Amino acid sequence: MAPYQAPLRDMQFALRELAGLDQIVALPGFEESGDVINAILEEAATFASEVLDPLNQSGDKEGCTWRDGEVTTPKGFKEAYARFAQAGWIGLPVPAEYGGQGLPQLLLGPTLEMWNAANVGFANGPLLNQGAIEAIELEGSSEQKERYIPKLVSGEWMGTMCLTEPQAGSDLAAVRTKAVPQDDHYLISGQKIFITFGEHDLAENIVHLVLARLPDAPEGTKGISMFIVPKFIPNADGSLGERNDVYCAGIEHKMGLNANPTCTLNYGERKGGAIGYLVGEPNRGLEYMFIMMNAARFSVGVQGYAIADRAYQRALEYAKERVQSRDVASRSHDAMRIIEHPDVRRMLMTMKAQLEAMRALSYVTAAALDLANRHPNEGVRKEKKAFVELMIPVVKGWCTETAQEVASTALQVFGGMGYIEETGIAQQYRDVRITTIYEGTTGIQALDLVGRKLIRDMGSTATAVITQMKSFTETIEPLENADVKVIAAALKTAIDALAETSQWIGTNAIGDVRKAFACSVPYLRLWGIVAGGWQMARAAQVALQKIDANDPEADFYRAKLTTARFYADHILTQAASLRSQVIEGAADVMSLPESQFDLDRKAAALV
Amino acid sequence: MAPYQAPLRDMQFALRELAGLDQIVALPGFEESGDVINAILEEAATFASEVLDPLNQSGDKEGCTWRDGEVTTPKGFKEAYARFAQAGWIGLPVPAEYGGQGLPQLLLGPTLEMWNAANVGFANGPLLNQGAIEAIELEGSSEQKERYIPKLVSGEWMGTMCLTEPQAGSDLAAVRTKAVPQDDHYLISGQKIFITFGEHDLAENIVHLVLARLPDAPEGTKGISMFIVPKFIPNADGSLGERNDVYCAGIEHKMGLNANPTCTLNYGERKGGAIGYLVGEPNRGLEYMFIMMNAARFSVGVQGYAIADRAYQRALEYAKERVQSRDVASRSHDAMRIIEHPDVRRMLMTMKAQLEAMRALSYVTAAALDLANRHPNEGVRKEKKAFVELMIPVVKGWCTETAQEVASTALQVFGGMGYIEETGIAQQYRDVRITTIYEGTTGIQALDLVGRKLIRDMGSTATAVITQMKSFTETIEPLENADVKVIAAALKTAIDALAETSQWIGTNAIGDVRKAFACSVPYLRLWGIVAGGWQMARAAQVALQKIDANDPEADFYRAKLTTARFYADHILTQAASLRSQVIEGAADVMSLPESQFDLDRKAAALV
Repeated sequence: MAPYQAPLRDMQFALRELAGLDQIVALPGFEESGDVINAILEEAATFASEVLDPLNQSGDKEGCTWRDGEVTTPKGFKEAYARFAQAGWIGLPVPAEYGGQGLPQLLLGPTLEMWNAANVGFANGPLLNQGAIEAIELEGSSEQKERYIPKLVSGEWMGTMCLTEPQAGSDLAAVRTKAVPQDDHYLISGQKIFITFGEHDLAENIVHLVLARLPDAPEGTKGISMFIVPKFIPNADGSLGERNDVYCAGIEHKMGLNANPTCTLNYGERKGGAIGYLVGEPNRGLEYMFIMMNAARFSVGVQGYAIADRAYQRALEYAKERVQSRDVASRSHDAMRIIEHPDVRRMLMTMKAQLEAMRALSYVTAAALDLANRHPNEGVRKEKKAFVELMIPVVKGWCTETAQEVASTALQVFGGMGYIEETGIAQQYRDVRITTIYEGTTGIQALDLVGRKLIRDMGSTATAVITQMKSFTETIEPLENADVKVIAAALKTAIDALAETSQWIGTNAIGDVRKAFACSVPYLRLWGIVAGGWQMARAAQVALQKIDANDPEADFYRAKLTTARFYADHILTQAASLRSQVIEGAADVMSLPESQFDLDRKAAALV
Repeated sequence: MAPYQAPLRDMQFALRELAGLDQIVALPGFEESGDVINAILEEAATFASEVLDPLNQSGDKEGCTWRDGEVTTPKGFKEAYARFAQAGWIGLPVPAEYGGQGLPQLLLGPTLEMWNAANVGFANGPLLNQGAIEAIELEGSSEQKERYIPKLVSGEWMGTMCLTEPQAGSDLAAVRTKAVPQDDHYLISGQKIFITFGEHDLAENIVHLVLARLPDAPEGTKGISMFIVPKFIPNADGSLGERNDVYCAGIEHKMGLNANPTCTLNYGERKGGAIGYLVGEPNRGLEYMFIMMNAARFSVGVQGYAIADRAYQRALEYAKERVQSRDVASRSHDAMRIIEHPDVRRMLMTMKAQLEAMRALSYVTAAALDLANRHPNEGVRKEKKAFVELMIPVVKGWCTETAQEVASTALQVFGGMGYIEETGIAQQYRDVRITTIYEGTTGIQALDLVGRKLIRDMGSTATAVITQMKSFTETIEPLENADVKVIAAALKTAIDALAETSQWIGTNAIGDVRKAFACSVPYLRLWGIVAGGWQMARAAQVALQKIDANDPEADFYRAKLTTARFYADHILTQAASLRSQVIEGAADVMSLPESQFDLDRKAAALV
């Protein structure tokens, strides 16, 4: 099997031509990053292929082991994390004052993709560590920032996010973990489950960011505070002090992601309370968590298509080598490589088109985040912030759902070999399945899209983006190219479907809220497909310009045009069905009485 | 976790109201089966719940072990197979003269569903044994029939189907295993891979049906013969004689289906040749295999939705118990059971509607097979045979593809718990993934549908079925019921899309064959969705009659109507997109040059 190879040229195309890299590196604070970007991408690609990829299959096979509260990660992971830290990859987006490199968020697109494609089990560690760094950076005291961030960036310590409890998964309002004030700190007690890298041997200390309730806290979401709970209490000089009262009671046996431990953590079980330090103000923990959650959701969206891209690479390699069956259009009896068979080619094109659309939309969203943070004009910042907030659930929900389709298609290309674990593709299929679940299921993303992003501002952000997409479509409609004409027409139809559906949901939200939410997931998919189609059409527009200008890479740009055309015919066409499903089908969703689902009643009896 | 419970009432509805059970039990030879059907269904349901289901998760966890050529199946499987045989389940469709019960094929729908839902790892044994019985029954000599079939029916021996070789998966023309004549038998040598239950401890003897080539055989598909290769050569009295030269060189480590061994079999490696007996005439092996393959493909279609139904049952149970998050349409802060949330309800309804459509279409196909075999009128037999041949790739391809969607949706209902192996749902997700691959991938089914079933008879069977669906739609259009009106309109639109697409493929098959085949998989899905929708509409028609007649089970029939309406709005609406994909997208499939898929070239470099 060929090692993972980062699709650098495709990444660069999306960065420069679609996400507007030049504009990002011109933002205040990023002026020096422009020069190093190519070098960073090349180095990251090498690190992913040479250090992370070789540990991927062995990590899945070996898995993690738990013994008396200690967790051992697979062979090679500890050394790889040390090298990852040493190479500066942890600190990529972290400000220089904490030892980071202060690079744009946009760079997270390709680098996250590389880590997750090469070894998602490994990559989840840095992904969550980054969340912890951001939480402390945004809301921690200056003492907390100085004490924790440099160690989290250097890789000596590693951060976690501890949200979920047995009764509180999607619904964090139900969090019960307690925090009782004592001297300068709090005593934390309770149980957290599903904590990724909640215990491990990659770093000498683990810094848990924990959601818990103060004794007098109001019920629900407004009574949750955030605490730093280190595994070892740091001394003033940064050395490790006392072992804190947080222990790992076990790890889960999962369908995939076996290389990273998913832990149950007990707080305050042995010594009556784990020492915790309040982050920011009391009762604002969920609000802080939501700030970070945007970043984590974006990252999981990228993780989804990263795993899918690895699956696609494997399928492509197999399709070029495997010889089976004769040409359907020939009288020859000679068998040919399966990439030459139309059905296999269709699967490869479908994956390629979907991957490019997901990558493009993610980068455009990341660039908007940089603009929202740094653009000198407040109006632009505001507009970009609203765009990012609308797109985060789409990037998370649509990319991960589509990534699962892609991984499944890739496995299908292998036929029977795909079902054998040795081949490797089954791992991607198992690994990617968690991405539509954690950091908020697709249902939760869709609730966020409809409730917080569409309805709350009366559709104004959605309308603005739809208007922007429509104007763009008008600019490409007059272009004299057969592919672009088809793309423009398909995009126009799809945008109209999205506009009509958005309007319909908005109207129904006033009357029948359940109906407005009933098909929020198909609505989210519609957004993804249309917004992805918009980016593919933008790619086609650039490609046409380059081809017309006799660019030396004309073949590369012709491929972009062809892929965009394929997307228009095969993916954008789904918009009409999704529109029908939402508008015509929403009323059906709740119409079957619950008792009629019941197998215990008559269904199990004959008449 | 609740044990598996066969949806008997739903099965009975599909048998009686949709598949026309009364007509089947009136066929010659089936006259006595009518009285016993309810009893058989009840008993099968009990066997599935009490004997097979308890071994499902333990079987997956324990898996099979290989040691020195011997394979041990999971604990309890051997005893379960003995009980299965003793209860007469193996012989259900086998004629009485061989110790079977001679029941209609239609009965295989519900019984196969029960075995596969309760324990697919176990059920694969009888499924393939049945194929071996049929092959010998149809093409074996009378001596072979007498020697082998009664033992295969009693469960003392068990059959396998040995087709695949490393270089011959989908393409059996590439089979290389050799058969050299010697005395009254042949010496077989070669290697077969992916042989389900190729070696095991469930029966004292294993009867392999092997495809191999005679020394003078023509190349390709017309030079393949079929042989019986018993693990132990039977003596004249039926006792076991010499150990034959066929040995299991290893078993695969698969993503799922861990309870059944997938074997590599070496023939003639130790003693220079395994003794084999020719079945039927030389060089007609593939033809014989195709007769059986229809049955096996039908069975795998049923297997697909059976596993999906088990997944749905688990999701339903969880959705009724799990309390999480408040009502989106209420100001109350109380969390509620997730079945009350619209998005979860949508997932449950989607699964329910798809399962009922798959079950109905499968039963209707099985009933047509009985009519094709036994109806006194030759014209009816011929018409039904053509219908069955058209529907087999649809039942196999569409049911297994849809089953994977359903299993994934079921897992999604569990959220994070779905990813934990203990919960059980992950097993269904892993197990079902093979069903779109073995017995011919979905791509192979779609090739069969377009090449052998649509194009070869110039579309006449397809046209006949489409005409039948159209006439049916006209009969329900005038009915005064809001749901039925919507269903009829959606069905009409979908049938038109199918008719147009079929016509388009037929026309293109004359000009550009690759284009005709390029979107054969979306075309197959279109067939499944429309034919399933036809059955759902028939269910709605029956339900409306029952409701109007004040049937005591009016609630049950109202649920059928509501579910059919849901299917129309949420599933049938996909027809339009599939039509566009085929007609507008087929030309795109081959248009990207292969070099542009290449990552090694420029794609890996920056510019």
